[in-house]
Amino acid sequence: MLKVAVITVSDRASRGEYPDRSGPRVREVLERELPGVDVVVEVVADEPRSLRAALRRHLGRDYILTTGGTGLAPRDITPETCARWCDREAPGISEWLRRESQRETPHAVFSRAYSGMKGRTLVVNLPGSLRGAELCARLLAGVMPHGRDMAHGGDHEPQKKQ
Amino acid sequence: MLKVAVITVSDRASRGEYPDRSGPRVREVLERELPGVDVVVEVVADEPRSLRAALRRHLGRDYILTTGGTGLAPRDITPETCARWCDREAPGISEWLRRESQRETPHAVFSRAYSGMKGRTLVVNLPGSLRGAELCARLLAGVMPHGRDMAHGGDHEPQKKQ
Amino acid sequence: MLKVAVITVSDRASRGEYPDRSGPRVREVLERELPGVDVVVEVVADEPRSLRAALRRHLGRDYILTTGGTGLAPRDITPETCARWCDREAPGISEWLRRESQRETPHAVFSRAYSGMKGRTLVVNLPGSLRGAELCARLLAGVMPHGRDMAHGGDHEPQKKQ
Repeated sequence: MLKVAVITVSDRASRGEYPDRSGPRVREVLERELPGVDVVVEVVADEPRSLRAALRRHLGRDYILTTGGTGLAPRDITPETCARWCDREAPGISEWLRRESQRETPHAVFSRAYSGMKGRTLVVNLPGSLRGAELCARLLAGVMPHGRDMAHGGDHEPQKKQ
Repeated sequence: MLKVAVITVSDRASRGEYPDRSGPRVREVLERELPGVDVVVEVVADEPRSLRAALRRHLGRDYILTTGGTGLAPRDITPETCARWCDREAPGISEWLRRESQRETPHAVFSRAYSGMKGRTLVVNLPGSLRGAELCARLLAGVMPHGRDMAHGGDHEPQKKQ
Repeated sequence: MLKVAVITVSDRASRGEYPDRSGPRVREVLERELPGVDVVVEVVADEPRSLRAALRRHLGRDYILTTGGTGLAPRDITPETCARWCDREAPGISEWLRRESQRETPHAVFSRAYSGMKGRTLVVNLPGSLRGAELCARLLAGVMPHGRDMAHGGDHEPQKKQ
């Protein structure tokens, strides 16, 4: 059973100025696409310290997905914070999600989303917009079980797959 | 009104061995696509020191676009110089421009172009070839106003956009 | 005449638990697509030290292609080892190969493959699977001569190509 944490990174949602909608939406999508998945959702401010603390809390889950904080505004610190926290980069995931998001909105080119690993936990930044987060969660759901298996070494006999 | 600097990075153009054509062409494209845009053009040698000095001169503009110096030759130093100077990376822009450039020439895969930010100024490396620079300038023009708004925090309420 | 080294990165193949098939297959593809090419093939374990030693042995060749070690398993260390060894990144090559690989398998998004340069030698990580390595070698063969010329400065008068 896949274990996932979803961290919404948003100053306003973390202060209660509006309800977090993206995090719960990502959870809905995952629960629909991956029956039996275990998803926890959390909201933090756009602060490196808060985000790092949340990442640490969820280390050991198969996936930590973030939503928000990947744009160009001065307080968009999600990609850098995740990149510094991770051990290894997995750039193909973000390249793909950006490319697919661009079909919906040309502004997706400004996404600075990062993806990587800390130990066996995969960290993937999703967009902050409700539609963008939903689209990316749906796409990602299709490959998440395989990614988890790879992270656990299950795919480490590549030449056998011919 | 969008403020843009275009820096042509070319040893030969900087020595006057031939006139810089890519920089003025990028300016033409921007002026056509973004009426009212303020564009300054400058030529520097393929030297990190010269390029850094030019970047510093234009810090505060909405965009600094470079043309040239993104290939595989030993003197192609534009991406590294810009990456070290910037605070934050914005990889989606270069991924997109490379992908679109590949429709014109398969050799675009060798572009090492970088895109990122220093403060609120967006830095984007364009190809050095006249056609490549023109194509990328035209594509970029379509999203430049939105990028500037994002950099100024105008888009920092992502969950409202549903 | 293009000079290429192919390094298979695989614990099991290096211990002789099974024969290396991806390296020889990449050589076959290159010899078919690039008549006259000079290809040497070598197998090393998934160990940064072994891979670095192999990279050093082949420095000066036009290309060093690796196969294997780009996934998510803890022992997949090819991208990091190559990135640290190289002087300059050339991300467009890996972006392209990942995108094309995805047409064959959606799991290609998990490829962490890196491409870059050490001096004038181009280093490109290919997938470890036989089919993936073969596809990428075939694609790459089409642009390898041009990349070599660029690395030697032959393309460094970009504005002439209009």
